[in-house]
Amino acid sequence: MDFLDILLKKREGKKLTKQEIDFFISGVTNETIPDYQISAFLMAIYFQSLDEQETAQLTMAMANSGEMFDLSDISGFKVDKHSTGGVADTTTLILAPLVASTGVNVVKMSGRGLGFSGGTLDKLESIPNFSIHVQQQQAIQWAKTSHIVIMGQNKNLTPADQKLYALRDVTATVESLPLIASSIMSKKIAAGADGIVLDVKCGNGAFMKTLEDAQKLGSIMASMGRHVGKKITVVISSMAQPLGNYIGNRLEVIEAIETLKGNVKGDLLTVSITLGAHMLVLAGKVSSEEEGKALLLQQIQNGKGLTKFKELLHQQGGNIKVIDDYSLLPLSEYRLSLTASTSGYIQSMDTASIGRASQQTGAGRKEKTDKIDFGAGIILKKRIGDKVEKGDVLAQIYSCSQERAQKALSIVQNAIVIGDTCPSQPKLLLDIITA
Amino acid sequence: MDFLDILLKKREGKKLTKQEIDFFISGVTNETIPDYQISAFLMAIYFQSLDEQETAQLTMAMANSGEMFDLSDISGFKVDKHSTGGVADTTTLILAPLVASTGVNVVKMSGRGLGFSGGTLDKLESIPNFSIHVQQQQAIQWAKTSHIVIMGQNKNLTPADQKLYALRDVTATVESLPLIASSIMSKKIAAGADGIVLDVKCGNGAFMKTLEDAQKLGSIMASMGRHVGKKITVVISSMAQPLGNYIGNRLEVIEAIETLKGNVKGDLLTVSITLGAHMLVLAGKVSSEEEGKALLLQQIQNGKGLTKFKELLHQQGGNIKVIDDYSLLPLSEYRLSLTASTSGYIQSMDTASIGRASQQTGAGRKEKTDKIDFGAGIILKKRIGDKVEKGDVLAQIYSCSQERAQKALSIVQNAIVIGDTCPSQPKLLLDIITA
Repeated sequence: MDFLDILLKKREGKKLTKQEIDFFISGVTNETIPDYQISAFLMAIYFQSLDEQETAQLTMAMANSGEMFDLSDISGFKVDKHSTGGVADTTTLILAPLVASTGVNVVKMSGRGLGFSGGTLDKLESIPNFSIHVQQQQAIQWAKTSHIVIMGQNKNLTPADQKLYALRDVTATVESLPLIASSIMSKKIAAGADGIVLDVKCGNGAFMKTLEDAQKLGSIMASMGRHVGKKITVVISSMAQPLGNYIGNRLEVIEAIETLKGNVKGDLLTVSITLGAHMLVLAGKVSSEEEGKALLLQQIQNGKGLTKFKELLHQQGGNIKVIDDYSLLPLSEYRLSLTASTSGYIQSMDTASIGRASQQTGAGRKEKTDKIDFGAGIILKKRIGDKVEKGDVLAQIYSCSQERAQKALSIVQNAIVIGDTCPSQPKLLLDIITA
Repeated sequence: MDFLDILLKKREGKKLTKQEIDFFISGVTNETIPDYQISAFLMAIYFQSLDEQETAQLTMAMANSGEMFDLSDISGFKVDKHSTGGVADTTTLILAPLVASTGVNVVKMSGRGLGFSGGTLDKLESIPNFSIHVQQQQAIQWAKTSHIVIMGQNKNLTPADQKLYALRDVTATVESLPLIASSIMSKKIAAGADGIVLDVKCGNGAFMKTLEDAQKLGSIMASMGRHVGKKITVVISSMAQPLGNYIGNRLEVIEAIETLKGNVKGDLLTVSITLGAHMLVLAGKVSSEEEGKALLLQQIQNGKGLTKFKELLHQQGGNIKVIDDYSLLPLSEYRLSLTASTSGYIQSMDTASIGRASQQTGAGRKEKTDKIDFGAGIILKKRIGDKVEKGDVLAQIYSCSQERAQKALSIVQNAIVIGDTCPSQPKLLLDIITA
């Protein structure tokens, strides 16, 4: 087989066979296909796309390109959850302990933040001594005892995806729905769960800007379940404004703990229990989303979710005292308040800009290798539709330097639009897609 | 400037600025843009194309990427000719001396054969001792005295084109009309002529299979003249069958000499004097194609074309005795005759296959580094529309081995279709495009 023929075939918009896709991924993994041919192929896929079957075959080839996490020693259904990335999107820290507290196994590999979007691993590592480095045997052992493990991705998983993702990033071929879908799904499949709830974020603070694109991506991933033998549910949720009010690693940990304590209502809770409810449905624990949501709210009220979170911290070395003493999660020392320059209603927010402002405080990364400041971030005091008076505090900025705090403040100021009339609330849950 | 932004812009189908195109070619030449970004960009161009202005800017940037041949010391108009490549396409050896014999300067850089297509350099080198390695000062000197120089491309010309062509070849991005046009034109512009006649071959023995594609390519190149300050005429000629009857390096030299002696009529002569006439028109030597053709036929009849050819050989070290003694151009020793298996009329020929059969005899190259056998090739005895009786010789094969000769014979046999009815003659000259 000559890769040039495969490249030509896709350039002409023809359907590739499983053998051709396997040959491609094998060549990527073994480095027998040069980067310049891979990148031309990725661009050809950007223009000619892949159909449902090709995407599933690519995904499985990528999942099989390295080690596969084998969770078969854990009895019962293993459920995972993935978000395409948003701002103040702290759902994992809330729903993972809630779901695990019902006895359903949550064995989750998470990622780091980049650009305007945060990452669960960074948030967990902002808790003193918490370790995200977990070997397979240890993960299985913990899942058996506590039903919950959250860890970093094993470096030996999906090497083909790692290679392709790095090339896509520098060749303007990131925005291809089949490539996005196969990148997400290959990692999730290699991570070994039986069912996956995918939270596709949509709006000005997400990678998918339109509902149409989010639905297309969701459909590709949902239908992939049929091809790869996994149960998949896709929830499309809005990023028209930050999901929670706390943005930044320790700030988001605090908001998650407050939510588990039952002290926070609102969008973050709504999305967390919706996603969690679908995890329970996939696991067969409940028979409907409504039943699942009720069960999870009960686990907040009876404190079992919080207890499970404490168990997670203890298990992975984190200081459990943070739960009752937030001073053990110190915030950055330079602090500024953004006040409203006029009275009115919050009309809209440029969520990605607010995410970038958080990055500017030191809470996020511009490049993968950047160090982050766990105590930095932003607390939003208002949401879309809220009435404000001139001088009201709109947001508080936390940073390790005055200059960074000031820059972040300017960005947030420009990102929040105040107007005279009360706007309609943006819809939070936009669609649910099952295979 | 970040190349990723330029790549993204072209992927989105937006028009690039001159600065962006210059940045690209500079990065290709200086190797500051990695191959994987270049190849993704070439694939984006394949899908989104370049408009007339972008193509001209790319061409000029490529022409300027290395040395430029400076012919300004030669007084009078300098005219060049280029063919997109065909089978038995020996026009240069005929028209260059004919045109030069009228006093018009022909300073020409030629290429080598590859695949089914032959190359002028190989044909000239098949003449004992002929040298195609000519330095700029020498070329200028010869042009001043003889009005004719034919030489290999200086390695320092258009390094960006050399780099891009090599990448296109292995990334399925050869078949992009603006990229083809800019590759051809950048070399011609760097080679320094004032006017260029482009012979775009069209049909089953050419790179352009349809008249529509040939016309598109021709239009791009013709209109480029306006942007780059060169006089350009495009002739589109048929490759429905080999142009001449002799295919292979020494065989084609012999047919060219026979044509200059006035002993060969037919398609090869027709196309040669048509292209040559347009060179004379561009140079201002004549005012019409008809006048040019008459002048060139006269230069055959009065022997001045042949004398100029002898002058070319003498000047570049070739043995002039070959003109009167073809035994000094020895042909390969294994010879086979292909005879008609049935009576009828020649309906059609698969010209590319006949070109590949010639390559199989040893006359051509599969890879750039292959050695060729100057004495190998094929003599066609029949053309489309000719009546044949069963047992008539259709072609003679010359090769350095019996096995190669036999393989070539089988290919030619399958490439020539004999049928009962007399077909209409394929049109030879399909279009002429001027800016």
